Parts: sequence; C-alpha cells; structure tokens
Amino acid sequence: MKASSATAAPLSFAEANVDRFVRELTDLVRIPSIGSDARHAADVRRCAQWIASHLAGLGIADVRLLPTAGHPLVFAATPPVPGRPVVMVYGHYDVQPPGPIAAWQTPPFRPARRGAWLFGRGASDDKGQLFAHIKALESWIRSGGPPVGVKLLFEGEEEIGSPSLAAALRAYRSLLGAHVVMVSDSPMPAPGRPAITTALRGSLGFEIEVRGAREDLHSGIFGGAIPDPIEVLCHVIATLGDRSGRITVSRFYDAVREVSSTERRALAATGPSDQQLLSDARAQTGWGERNFTLFEKTTIRPSLTVTGIRGGHTGPGDRTVLAASARARVNVRLVPNQRPDDVARLLARHMARVMPASVRATLRFGRSTRPYQIAREHPMVRAAMRACRKGFGAPAALLPMGGSVAAVPAFQDVLGIPSVLVGFGLPDDGKHGPNERFYLPTFRRAVATSIHFLAEVA
Amino acid sequence: MKASSATAAPLSFAEANVDRFVRELTDLVRIPSIGSDARHAADVRRCAQWIASHLAGLGIADVRLLPTAGHPLVFAATPPVPGRPVVMVYGHYDVQPPGPIAAWQTPPFRPARRGAWLFGRGASDDKGQLFAHIKALESWIRSGGPPVGVKLLFEGEEEIGSPSLAAALRAYRSLLGAHVVMVSDSPMPAPGRPAITTALRGSLGFEIEVRGAREDLHSGIFGGAIPDPIEVLCHVIATLGDRSGRITVSRFYDAVREVSSTERRALAATGPSDQQLLSDARAQTGWGERNFTLFEKTTIRPSLTVTGIRGGHTGPGDRTVLAASARARVNVRLVPNQRPDDVARLLARHMARVMPASVRATLRFGRSTRPYQIAREHPMVRAAMRACRKGFGAPAALLPMGGSVAAVPAFQDVLGIPSVLVGFGLPDDGKHGPNERFYLPTFRRAVATSIHFLAEVA
Repeated sequence: MKASSATAAPLSFAEANVDRFVRELTDLVRIPSIGSDARHAADVRRCAQWIASHLAGLGIADVRLLPTAGHPLVFAATPPVPGRPVVMVYGHYDVQPPGPIAAWQTPPFRPARRGAWLFGRGASDDKGQLFAHIKALESWIRSGGPPVGVKLLFEGEEEIGSPSLAAALRAYRSLLGAHVVMVSDSPMPAPGRPAITTALRGSLGFEIEVRGAREDLHSGIFGGAIPDPIEVLCHVIATLGDRSGRITVSRFYDAVREVSSTERRALAATGPSDQQLLSDARAQTGWGERNFTLFEKTTIRPSLTVTGIRGGHTGPGDRTVLAASARARVNVRLVPNQRPDDVARLLARHMARVMPASVRATLRFGRSTRPYQIAREHPMVRAAMRACRKGFGAPAALLPMGGSVAAVPAFQDVLGIPSVLVGFGLPDDGKHGPNERFYLPTFRRAVATSIHFLAEVA
Repeated sequence: MKASSATAAPLSFAEANVDRFVRELTDLVRIPSIGSDARHAADVRRCAQWIASHLAGLGIADVRLLPTAGHPLVFAATPPVPGRPVVMVYGHYDVQPPGPIAAWQTPPFRPARRGAWLFGRGASDDKGQLFAHIKALESWIRSGGPPVGVKLLFEGEEEIGSPSLAAALRAYRSLLGAHVVMVSDSPMPAPGRPAITTALRGSLGFEIEVRGAREDLHSGIFGGAIPDPIEVLCHVIATLGDRSGRITVSRFYDAVREVSSTERRALAATGPSDQQLLSDARAQTGWGERNFTLFEKTTIRPSLTVTGIRGGHTGPGDRTVLAASARARVNVRLVPNQRPDDVARLLARHMARVMPASVRATLRFGRSTRPYQIAREHPMVRAAMRACRKGFGAPAALLPMGGSVAAVPAFQDVLGIPSVLVGFGLPDDGKHGPNERFYLPTFRRAVATSIHFLAEVA
C-alpha cells in the first residue's frame, strides 16, 4: 500500500491534537503506580484501569484487564485486517520507586512542565513512550482505522522484572498472536536522532546477607574477636570484581560472545562517544574493563553493580556497634550467550568458596532476564527504520542497549514473536533516578513514527 | 582508720534502703538522655538537672551544673577531710541511641524489671553504675559523713567520645583537685566476680564517603562504564584488614606494645575463656588475629570494626540503581603505645594510596581517645581490691578492657590524676545493643563496694 498517502490523515489529526495528548499523559504520570511497593498496589491497579478506560473511550471494542499472578495486563485489540500482519505494542504502566524525595525538584507524582520537558516519575519510563503508541492508534482510528491489526499489551510489573509475564503469555496465548512486537522502553542517543535497539543485556539480581552475632555488640568490648559482618560483606563483594572492572567470578566470561571487529567498528561509528556517555551520566570519570569503549562496556560486555548495601549504624550520632548483620544487593547484566541460570550457579559456587566459615550467609536470587538480539536485516527492523526516518526526518541508529526488558525474551520464547525496539527516551531522562523527565518534542515525533510504522509493516 | 567498723553504719543504711534506691534508679533510666541526638538535647539537660537536684536533696551543699561547649557536667563536692585524700567519682549520664526499636522487648526508655534485672537504655551504661556511687555517698552522709573528701563529676557526652571534657577539665581545674578518680563504666566477668580494669583500649573513628556520578543512575544503561561507589567502598574497606583479622594498613602495628608472656599467662588465668566470651557476645564463632585468645584480641591487640555502611537502595522493591555515593564508618581500637594522631596519619596515607582516581572520596576523622594503663601495684588499685573483696565477698580480677573511656586519659593528661576502674556491668548487659539491662544484685554489692572504697583509701 502507499504508506505515505495513507498516513496523511492520522498525521494531521495527531498534529492538531498534540496539546491534548500531553495533558492526558500528564494525568497518567500523576498516578503513583509503583509496582514494587505493596503500599501502592491500589495505585497500580488504578493506573491499569485508567488506561483501559482511556482505550475504550477511543472506540476500541475489545479492551480487557487480563489478570495475572501479580498486577493485571492491559490488553486491547483492533479488528484484524485481512492479509495484513498484526502488530502488538508492548509497554509498561508501572514505574520505579521515586527514591529519596529530597532529590526531586518537584514531587515525582505531581507532573510538571518545565521548558520542553514533562517531569515526573514514569514520564519517560515508560508512560510517555507507551502513550505515544496509544495516540498514534487513536489518530489512525479517527482516520478510518489502522492499516494492520493492532494489539496493545501493557504490563504492570516491568520494573520488578516481569515476574508474572511469561506465565500470562502462556495463559493468554490464543489472544496474543502477532507478527511483531513493537517495544518502546529504550533510549535514543539525542533529540532528533532516533534509534532502534538491536540488543538488550540480560539481568540477574541477588541479595547477600551476612550474619555474625545475634545482636549488635559494643565494638570496643568485642571488636577483634567476633566476626564483623560488614567487613566480611565488603571482602566478599571485593572478590566479585577486580579494580579494573573485570568480574572475577570463575568462568564468568566463558559464555560471553566475542563481538567481531566489524560490529565494534559499527558501534564506534554509531554509538555514543565516551564523552557523550559521561555527559549523559553526568559523571566526571569513566571506569571499567580495559580495551572497551564506555558504550561497549554497557552493551556488549557484562557488568556487575552493587545496587545497595546496608549494615550497622550510619545515622545521626556515633553508635560504635559491631553489627549483627549486613546485606547487599547486586545486579549483574548479561550479554549473549550468557544464561542467567548458569551465571547464578557460578555465583553461588563463588560465594560458597569465598564466604568465611565464621559467619552465616544467605544468598537469594531474584528474577532474571535473558539477553536479546535481533538481526539488523530483519524485515521488521527495516520497517521501523523507514518509520523513524519519516517520523524524525533523520535516519535511525541501530544500537545495542545496556538495559534489560524482560518481556522481550519472553515474547520470543513463549510466543515466538520477535520484538522491534524503537525507544523514545533520552539518556539523561533520569530513568530510575530523581527528576525523571520526558522530552515533549520527541513525544510528538514518536506519535508520528508509530503512525508511520503501522503503515510501513502493512 | 579502722575501715571495717566505720563502714557498719553506712552499709546497714544501704541495706535498709536498697528498694528505694532501685526505684530512684528507675526514674533516672526513664530519661532518654541520648547525647548524640540533637532531638534529645532537652532530655540530656533534664537528666543533668535530675541528678543535680537529687544530689542537693542528699544534703550536699556544693552541687553545680558546670557548662561546657556541649552538655553540662554535674559536679558535687563534700567538704574535704583534713589529712585525708580526695576521691573523685566519674560517670556519665548520657546514653547510646536505642537502635532499632523493634529489637527491644520493652521500650528502651520505659524501664522494666524482669527477674533480677532492670531493663532500659542506660541501665548498665552508665546510670546504674554511677548511681551506686551516689547511693554509697548518701549512705555515708546519713551515717555522719564520708571519711574522705568526695567529688562527683558526671558528664553528658561520654557516648560521643567526650568532645568537651578535656577543655572543661582545664577550665574547672581549680575545682577538680583529687588524688584518684573512681570510674565505674566497665564490665565484671560474671555476677559475684568483681573486676578492676587496669587497661583501656583507645578509640579512633572515621567516615569514608565515596562519590561517583552526580545522581543515582540506571544500572543497566550505565553499569560497567561508570564507577560504582559501593563496590569501590567495599574494595577500599577490604584493604584495611585481611581475612584473618590482621589490620593491613602499613606500619599500623609498629607502635603496638608486645605483651610479655608473663602478662599473657595472667590474662589466660583471670580473663574469660574463648567460650565465655562467645557466650557473652551470644555469638557462635570467634574470629580475628591468629595466635591470640579471643579476650586478648579484644584487649591487648588493636581492632578495626566497620560500624556502619550505607549506599544505594536496600528497601522494599528492586531499584536497580548505580548509586551516586556510599559511605561507611569505621572504629579502630588502639592499645599502648599507639597514638591516635599517628594512626590517623597512617590511615589517611593508606586511603590516599588505595582510593581509585575514578571516584571522589572524603575521609573524616571523628573524636579519638588514647589507650590507658594503670599498674596492678598502684596503691589505689590495692584499695579498690580490698573494697571489692568486702563488697562482693570475692577477690577482684584485674583485667584489661577492650572498650574506651575517653575521660580516663583526660584525667591523667590534664589533671595528672590516675583512674581506678571498678566496673559493675556484666558482659551480656547489652550495652550499645537492644535490651540493655542491669543486674540488681550487683547494684546492691556495688553500693557496698563504694562504701568500702571510701573507707579503704582514707
């Protein structure tokens, strides 16, 4: 079909209504749908219902909340178009906890426009991105209907590793047939430079708890003779990686796919420079494994981050305690062809080896996600490239991403559907940190890109 | 003078009034005089006033609150006895913060009697102990007056390292002349086994803060390329000591006095066994420097304890952040002849050497205290030994202690007065931990011992 002429009506509808779209997005960001926090369970549910009502209001006849073991999936489907593929759009309506409130310039759930930005937890990750697809679909519906069958699937547990998703995909398999999943939960390098994410790192989280005496003790009376769980924990963590950033768990790198020099040259040409990545991180200094660029270290190489540590007394006053226990959380990012279960086994064996017998220790693994890759030549990637060029007026960069989207390997494994990741977040959006924001000119272009994508795959 | 006949009257007064004494102590423990917590500044002051009023009520004419740069000293003096020495009793009315309230069986500042114990923060450390001396003095006063001049000096900042004490001792030097300071802020090995502490470890505290990026970052997008302050902090802490418990800061042990085999045999004969110390700590396993008993490790050897660590996210939910900063507090205990300033220099040099250039780090030293020793043959130690034998009906063990009492080196350095440390705390009193308690049969014997001591030195 002639994509360019068919898109004229929905594109002009979107342009005419963009201010309303932003107001609606603001309402969505206002809902504190923190999926990981039981105190916000009702808010998460309310968010799902808000989206479902909104979709029904667009005239979509088939809108459902699909129950899962955790938060529900929001599902909607337009009628199939005979002889045309079905595109499923995936996103998530849960958000990260806001973290320390004091670090926010405006409250995380009172979305605020400042300049060209909408600030608020979830504005970029992932409410702004999923809403662009909803508004693209609305634009098609108001212009006579989309040229392909469209399914929407929004989950409420992405930020906790999508624990219920794979089982739900199995349970609702008959509803969820599609040719491709369009996922927007990834970054683009800069405003006006769209990107298609061709690889995701996997993720494996664990918590280590080290226990010494039954209660906190006086560090003078007992210091030197009773194990110090904090010091032990530090020693154990120090065995996980060397000071150059190389992970020192035995056999950890065995399964890591070495990336060809051709691919690395492409990365160097297209990906962010070290300086750009530092600027995105608002950090002064890089770090990590030798002989790789900073971007390579975050994409084609695995990493290990201690995401939290706590023990003893660090509050006001000077309690000189020998702590009874200490714990840390670690997040490992995996690359092809590492398998989370294999890596967990290596870590468990490592811990058993390095943990001193003088303490009791517990190792708890959390959810894990496999890494993902799609070929640059895949026809759906090609369609997305054309849509990006039209939506942004610029060619899309094809880049790997350091983050993980648990749903993507699940779609592949459970439903056999490949995912195309077209991300609309900017690297300095503050995803997971304070002052998260979404760049509104990108929102407008994202709606256009989504409108084009449905035409390009038709 | 014939000590034994002179003590009959005060001893029988004390026996007759012990129940009232315990009720009064309960009132004292009820005051949340947490010296390190600015929110409790008024409570600390109220505690000082409570004690001063109580002393005035005993008929002591000279009772004062002596202002300092921090919390006031409570001072009282009975008239000097011509030709007899002056004994100064030192204690502290400030207490440690209670720590996690959930770990307490009854609230820390609602003192509760269970069995032979009085539970409450400060019951043992140090309110119960200083109150025994007040009640001994009351018993003498009600029996015609003490046989020596007695001064009482109670401070409100012991638990934060007595930051104002040395300056206050200099400022009030003319008031504070004495021949010996009786200090009760140390443990005895078991009920019925009194102890005189002949050595104290010194103490040096510091905080390390490590900073990476300006804000918390997404561990997927940036993990591997931006320094992880928590991991760096763990690496740095791991360089401070080896896994056997030996401190690995260069030249750290240079000044440590080697203890003779004779002294070590005496320690082995008198001090707690490894098993006893583990039982006191309610710990399953010991730890630390090779070739020393557990008790030696806590007394004649220095130690290093990480008293607190914090960074990133450890609360509910799974925020996979690459933290912007992390910090830890460390407490080093020193033995003769280590000097805190020298050790601080060694630590600062060590930190400068091991801290990677990829992060910014701050090292902040807190208060320090010198170690202390008194000869076993000192006449005041001998007088205290006789008093203990009479008060407890058992010989006193002469033992070093792993804790620090900042006032003791200050009395020596500023006023030239030696301290005799007769402690009434039990090792499992829960000092600094939850469920702190004081053993009331000891309180009764402590009052008797203090009555005897004043006679023995006369």
